[in-house]
Amino acid sequence: MATYIYEQRVMFQHCDPAQIVFYPRYFEMVNATIETWFEKVALYSYVEMFNNADSGVPTAAIEARFHAPSRLGDLLHWHLSVTKLGNSSISFEIEAKAADERRVSVSTTLVHIDAQTGKSSPWPTKARANITKFMEDQ
Amino acid sequence: MATYIYEQRVMFQHCDPAQIVFYPRYFEMVNATIETWFEKVALYSYVEMFNNADSGVPTAAIEARFHAPSRLGDLLHWHLSVTKLGNSSISFEIEAKAADERRVSVSTTLVHIDAQTGKSSPWPTKARANITKFMEDQ
Amino acid sequence: MATYIYEQRVMFQHCDPAQIVFYPRYFEMVNATIETWFEKVALYSYVEMFNNADSGVPTAAIEARFHAPSRLGDLLHWHLSVTKLGNSSISFEIEAKAADERRVSVSTTLVHIDAQTGKSSPWPTKARANITKFMEDQ
Amino acid sequence: MATYIYEQRVMFQHCDPAQIVFYPRYFEMVNATIETWFEKVALYSYVEMFNNADSGVPTAAIEARFHAPSRLGDLLHWHLSVTKLGNSSISFEIEAKAADERRVSVSTTLVHIDAQTGKSSPWPTKARANITKFMEDQ
Repeated sequence: MATYIYEQRVMFQHCDPAQIVFYPRYFEMVNATIETWFEKVALYSYVEMFNNADSGVPTAAIEARFHAPSRLGDLLHWHLSVTKLGNSSISFEIEAKAADERRVSVSTTLVHIDAQTGKSSPWPTKARANITKFMEDQ
Repeated sequence: MATYIYEQRVMFQHCDPAQIVFYPRYFEMVNATIETWFEKVALYSYVEMFNNADSGVPTAAIEARFHAPSRLGDLLHWHLSVTKLGNSSISFEIEAKAADERRVSVSTTLVHIDAQTGKSSPWPTKARANITKFMEDQ
Repeated sequence: MATYIYEQRVMFQHCDPAQIVFYPRYFEMVNATIETWFEKVALYSYVEMFNNADSGVPTAAIEARFHAPSRLGDLLHWHLSVTKLGNSSISFEIEAKAADERRVSVSTTLVHIDAQTGKSSPWPTKARANITKFMEDQ
Repeated sequence: MATYIYEQRVMFQHCDPAQIVFYPRYFEMVNATIETWFEKVALYSYVEMFNNADSGVPTAAIEARFHAPSRLGDLLHWHLSVTKLGNSSISFEIEAKAADERRVSVSTTLVHIDAQTGKSSPWPTKARANITKFMEDQ
């Protein structure tokens, strides 16, 4: 299964008074991982979605398990893979590791919508082709 | 089952370019709901945990489903109930509603830890008694 | 000079690894103070600006001095006064206090714009009247 | 005058309902610029400050002017220079540009403190030497 990796250093702004990553900041990193993947791999960037395609990809569901805390200065690698591509939805498995230690595991599903109506809308042909190609890569 | 309600207006800072709540901000609201519940109901505030008890309550797992978008100005009511109280853990069901529309459903488990060792640590007697009382209230 | 007061408890999400408020979170509180003042006093809410008037109030300049740190659990009172009302701009002095201790002093200027063009746009008559009345109150 | 450049893409999480960067997020970028500069140039990282030196660098004052809005996808270059190095303080000028357009200008002063007492504390010799060298570079 193809994997896309997004790198994020744990910075001061991510950490809480217990000196570990405050978990809502992890979701900002998850969002950044997916956003960058859409730009670099699906070749269907959020800029294009909003400004040209009048579309969006709101999150329908997400779940996360936090295996071990992350601390200031840790270098996290977020490993993304696509587990399901629907007509107008997509599901990801995303895992953050520091060196080889698992920190966070996330499963999430997004829906591609028409921003005018808020209703689900099929993936554009080009994006679907790029995502399918990514999923088939070894 | 007893329910605690935390109120949060959707403000500018919570909204994204699609003009709906950016979901990591929902998790800040979830955190605020739980934090306020610990202070008001369990009578075991984060201030006491950090400054006196040298404890903490990191999140072990969380899942959320987003039923409908929330917009600038919406008044959200976050309904919290305790689904399980363990020796050193606690599980919550939390649901956000605007008027009577369900917006977000969250299940989450936190672990009470000793901040020095990072290991799980039993709930203080007083907090356990208060939480048990809350769970028994109708 | 009339003063509007916005109350904000310092919560976990505002604090950094040094266990004090991370200053970008102070600016979220400044924004919330102004946003609430526009709704309650100017009677020209951000919801109305965005959805009906196709306007906005971006920040042109801001400066802040941090007199003393704020800690988890502190109750902050943000005191807002209007120092200048221009044709399409407004300047505020905003000060955060905990009990009687000064924590943060902020000066900021916002510009009322036409959201379509991004150009400055005169205040609506009703909002101007309400703001003027606020400034004249003792 | 020596300049250090920190690069930051404007992402979804930075943008507000007006589809431009929400200014408290700019301050997170300012913080990230300074944090990275401390690590790479002063060779005195926040990790070292917190974990070994029991020190910190809270912000005493900051001012910002916002020249033009930044939008989703913009690539910002944050240019940092040191304008003054005191016994236990440091002042920066920081400017964000997208291509050659000025977006934000920031002046800020931080104080190096002893984290136990909260009192100002002289810069460590090594850090002072590295900062001085940076300031002298052309």
